Order: sequence, then C-alpha cells, then structure tokens
Amino acid sequence: MRITALAGGVGGARFLRGLLHHLDSLPTGPDGPHEVTVIGNTADDVTLHGLRICPDLDTVMYTLGGGIHPEQGWGRAGETFGVAAELAAYGAEPQWFTLGDRDIATHLVRTRMLGLGYPLSAVTEALCARWQPGVRLLPMSDDPIETHVVIDDPEGEAHADGTPAVKAVHFQEWWVRLHAAAPARQILAVGIDQAKPAPGVLEAIADADVVLLPPSNPVVSIGTILAVPGIRDAIRATKAPVVGVSPIIGGAPVRGMADACLSAIGVETSAAAVADLYSDFLGGWLVAPGDAGSTMPEGVALRAVPLLMSDVEATAAIAAAALDLATQLG
Amino acid sequence: MRITALAGGVGGARFLRGLLHHLDSLPTGPDGPHEVTVIGNTADDVTLHGLRICPDLDTVMYTLGGGIHPEQGWGRAGETFGVAAELAAYGAEPQWFTLGDRDIATHLVRTRMLGLGYPLSAVTEALCARWQPGVRLLPMSDDPIETHVVIDDPEGEAHADGTPAVKAVHFQEWWVRLHAAAPARQILAVGIDQAKPAPGVLEAIADADVVLLPPSNPVVSIGTILAVPGIRDAIRATKAPVVGVSPIIGGAPVRGMADACLSAIGVETSAAAVADLYSDFLGGWLVAPGDAGSTMPEGVALRAVPLLMSDVEATAAIAAAALDLATQLG
Repeated sequence: MRITALAGGVGGARFLRGLLHHLDSLPTGPDGPHEVTVIGNTADDVTLHGLRICPDLDTVMYTLGGGIHPEQGWGRAGETFGVAAELAAYGAEPQWFTLGDRDIATHLVRTRMLGLGYPLSAVTEALCARWQPGVRLLPMSDDPIETHVVIDDPEGEAHADGTPAVKAVHFQEWWVRLHAAAPARQILAVGIDQAKPAPGVLEAIADADVVLLPPSNPVVSIGTILAVPGIRDAIRATKAPVVGVSPIIGGAPVRGMADACLSAIGVETSAAAVADLYSDFLGGWLVAPGDAGSTMPEGVALRAVPLLMSDVEATAAIAAAALDLATQLG
Repeated sequence: MRITALAGGVGGARFLRGLLHHLDSLPTGPDGPHEVTVIGNTADDVTLHGLRICPDLDTVMYTLGGGIHPEQGWGRAGETFGVAAELAAYGAEPQWFTLGDRDIATHLVRTRMLGLGYPLSAVTEALCARWQPGVRLLPMSDDPIETHVVIDDPEGEAHADGTPAVKAVHFQEWWVRLHAAAPARQILAVGIDQAKPAPGVLEAIADADVVLLPPSNPVVSIGTILAVPGIRDAIRATKAPVVGVSPIIGGAPVRGMADACLSAIGVETSAAAVADLYSDFLGGWLVAPGDAGSTMPEGVALRAVPLLMSDVEATAAIAAAALDLATQLG
C-alpha cells in the first residue's frame, strides 16, 4: 500500500507516528512493505540568526526518528540552550524564538547545504538519512515560501477612511511571540504563487493508493500545501481515495491555535467547516463522536471515532480508521 | 600613550592582558587614559559548517573580555558541546575541529552580519561591544584571507622528476588535525596580495606612540599581518619606536608550534632569527636571559628579561619592560 500524507507540524507528526505504528502491525502486502510519503509544509519556514529553519519538516523528522521532545511535541529531547544564552548576551534579535543546541546542528547542516546550492528536498533527504523516519519526507516545494500575518498596528497611523493601520509579521512571530492573540487580518504565503511542487510530490499523489490529511492546521499547514500550484489539482485528479482527520473537536482545535487561523479566512471553527475547505476532493472525513451530527459537505463519507491522539496506540487506532474508511471508498 | 600592537592568538592575547594590567597600574597620562589598538591576525580564519570563524580575533576578544577558557587559552570558559555532538551524528565534516556552543553563538552573529554586508571590522566592533576588551580590536583586513599549507601527499603520484606529490590543506587542518607534524613545504596566505588594511589600521600605526609585537607566531600571525600590502611600510614609516617580544626561548617556541612554521620559510628557530625577520623596522627586542648572548640584527636594542607569561603579573612585567625599552628608544 502506498500512502501519501500531507503534514504540518506537531499534529501531523503525531498522526504519522500512529500511522506507522498501525502499519507495523499489518502483514506486508503482496507488493512488499507499505510505503508512506509525507508532503511536508514549508510555509512556516523562517531564517533566524542566519539559519534556515523548517519547523514542520523537522517536527516530522524528529518525531518519526525518535528525537522529539515527547511532552512538547516539537524540538529535541534532552535539548540544551548554550548557544541561545550567548546569542541573548550579544543582544542578537529576535529573542522570542529560542533555538536549542541540538536543533541548531540540524539548521547548520541545512543552511550550509542550501548555501552550496542543494535544493531543500535534497537537504531533507540528507537529514533523514540520519533520522530514518520510516517515511519518505518531501518538502511541498523547494522554493522558499514564508507565511506573513497582517495584524493591526496600534502604533501606526490610521488610514484616511478610518481603517486602522496594519503591519505584517512573520507567521512565527505571530504564532510564537504573539501567541496568535493579535487577530489576523490576512494570512499571506509569500512566494507561493511562483512555487513549484518539489520533485516527487505530484507523482506521490498521483501514484498513491490512499491520500491522507492528518489533523494539521487547515490554513497554515494543509492550506498552504494545497496552495502550491499543482498540488490541489493533483489531489483532485488522483484515483486514490482522500481521507482526512478533523483537527477540530467540538468547535475547538485539538491543539495549536487553528481557530485563530480559521477566523482570518472567515471560516468557522468546526469539523464541518474544515471539511468544506476540502470538499472538492475529500472522500472521507473522520470526526469526533460529538461532531457526528453536524451537516457535512455532500458526498463526503463521515466516520465518527475518538480523535484525541493521547498516545501512540490511540493514534494508531485513528489511522486504522482512516485507512479502513479509505478502503471502503476505494 | 597610544599603543598599537599586532597580535595573533593565544600568545598575543595573553601578552595584551598583561599589558592592560600594567597600564592599569600607571597614572593616567596628560592626554587622558592610555589607548591600546590591536591589529589582529585574520589569516587563519576559516569557514566551517557555514560559520565564519576568526580564531585569533576571538581569542583576543575572549581573553581581554574575561570569557576565555583559562587553562586552554582559547575557546570559552564553561563551554558545552551540544551542537558539535549533533553535527557529528549527522556526519557533517570536518570532524577534527570541534566548535563549542558558546563559541558558535559568536560565529552565528559574525556570519549573519557578514552575510548582511557588514565588513569584518564592523562585525568585530559589534562583538566587542559586548565583551568590552579594553582595547580597540581591528582585524588586519576586511578582505578574506586564508592560509593554506602545502604538505607532502603520500597518496598522490610523484612528479616525473622524482619530487614527491604535494597537496594544500587549510592552515587549521594542518595545525589542529595534523598538529603541524606534516612538514610544511610552503605556507601561502591566499588572498593577501589583494587585501587592503582594514579601516584605521594604517592610522593606528602612524599615530602610535609605541608599536608592540607580542610573542605571536612570526610566520602565520605577525608574518601575515605584515604581509598585508601597506602594513609593513606603515611600520617602517612610523615615528613610534617598534619593540618586539621574542616568541622563541632557547631555540624553542614558548608555546604553539612556531618552529614548524619557521622551518617552512627556511628560518632557524631562534630569537635572533626571528628578530632578523623584523630587522627593517625593529627598534627593540626582548629576549629571555639565556638568549642574550646571541648575535642580533644590527641596530636593534636588546633587553633580556624573563619571558615566560606564567601569570598576569609576570606578563605585565614583560609588557612593562617592552614599554620601558620603547621609552629609551623614543
């Protein structure tokens, strides 16, 4: 079975870990072992202290490779902060994003390879050669894309028509420093219009037996992956069933601050509203039992299962339900 | 008193710390506090893991700023190696140069500023704003210069005339990985012919009341500073007395592996032979008592004092003797 999954950071990575756990429990298929390709979001990538940081790719890589900080869900286990303390002593900005020493090594290798001209997909492959995540991890694009968030600027001068002044901040600043508390007027994935899918991305969607959408942020993770020209069309065109897992349970995100992102695009924070975002290609949708009564987009097969990824076993059960639903659709 | 000193790494930095200690003990002169300008060697700079590293500038900065590893004489006190362990886990080369976490922060700030277009002199000033080394630290040049060492290549094919195959390695590889054990056939400061002195360097030499040569490596530290076009001429032309401290005691370097460098340029490892390298501008030369009987270049005032920089007090006494000799010459 060839499974292709789109993934953001923590939620996507945890789902994938459960998926691999479930696949390990299955007998090997007639075509050999099951193969999982992950198309990772790179729209929240950021350059800090001269280091190119790909938070979502790294979260997937560390989680599946056994290096993740288990409680946090992002960053490295056993992390230390020697470099960060010194950067602060130098007054190096920004100080709202603290890089761990172990994590910095990843960024050094990546930044060096990018500087030598390797595309991000080749860099990611090189990093994964160490981590052996058990999936083929592809960035959605080799082209640099950065999400900026437009927020009110209380210090700026209001426009002549009375609309308040706004400013754009990098997504990471909005997310990490401002905790997504400043209402997002707009969320802009800068560079995405000109971006091309990374090598292998469109093929992985076309050739898949199943396409999965883990419970990642529907705006700044899944939404940006789908916005890379060609990817959404490929998902619409694939013969594989497409099954998603709702990131929303009973009107609230399972984790993260997806509600703040959904508001920015004028979408309700509900399992149904998120399914609606995917209605042009979605075949099946897993929701939490409490959301089973909501009206979902027409033609989407609904299944209600417990969606809390409380541990690997519970997550494996969610993944199993998603694959089971896909089998019914296929 | 305006003092301008040329300096390499550990030896130069320790001498300068003694010099500052001595100056602290002097009454402030009629023109205000004594001012020390250090022209630092940058010819052993190296880029590793994408980080621009200036070992000699950093050794001076850390030593005078109170951040140096006291026994080692280079690197940071209380250093940790979280990043290096991870770089090794990635198999990132080279693995023969271990960067500490605290040190890496310095290189990150430097590399980022250089990438933004700041010249090395501005970067060094910014780094020193934190360390407050008590001197004005100038790189000898803002232009990148890297010393390469030509050594025999046992795996290479010998030339037709029977001369053995050679290869060039970066100075740091020769020094750190090979411990200068492979005989240096040539030492080449790549880029030095086109280099310009950094802003302020020539003025600091011309306007000095005293020019000092600490006991730094006469080939790869003092030698390369002097090889930047314009610097040697400025030292010849300055009205200030030029006083040096021999890095050689009784036929052996006080520390480091200066003998391996001197052999490469066909110069004997002796206090007299090193003085000879500077004979076109040297006014006074401090040697160890045991070397007082040697024949020194004509016109150089000799003074014999204990030259072991065993602690700050002993080093301050050496600096005091150098300044005293300069006063006699002036």
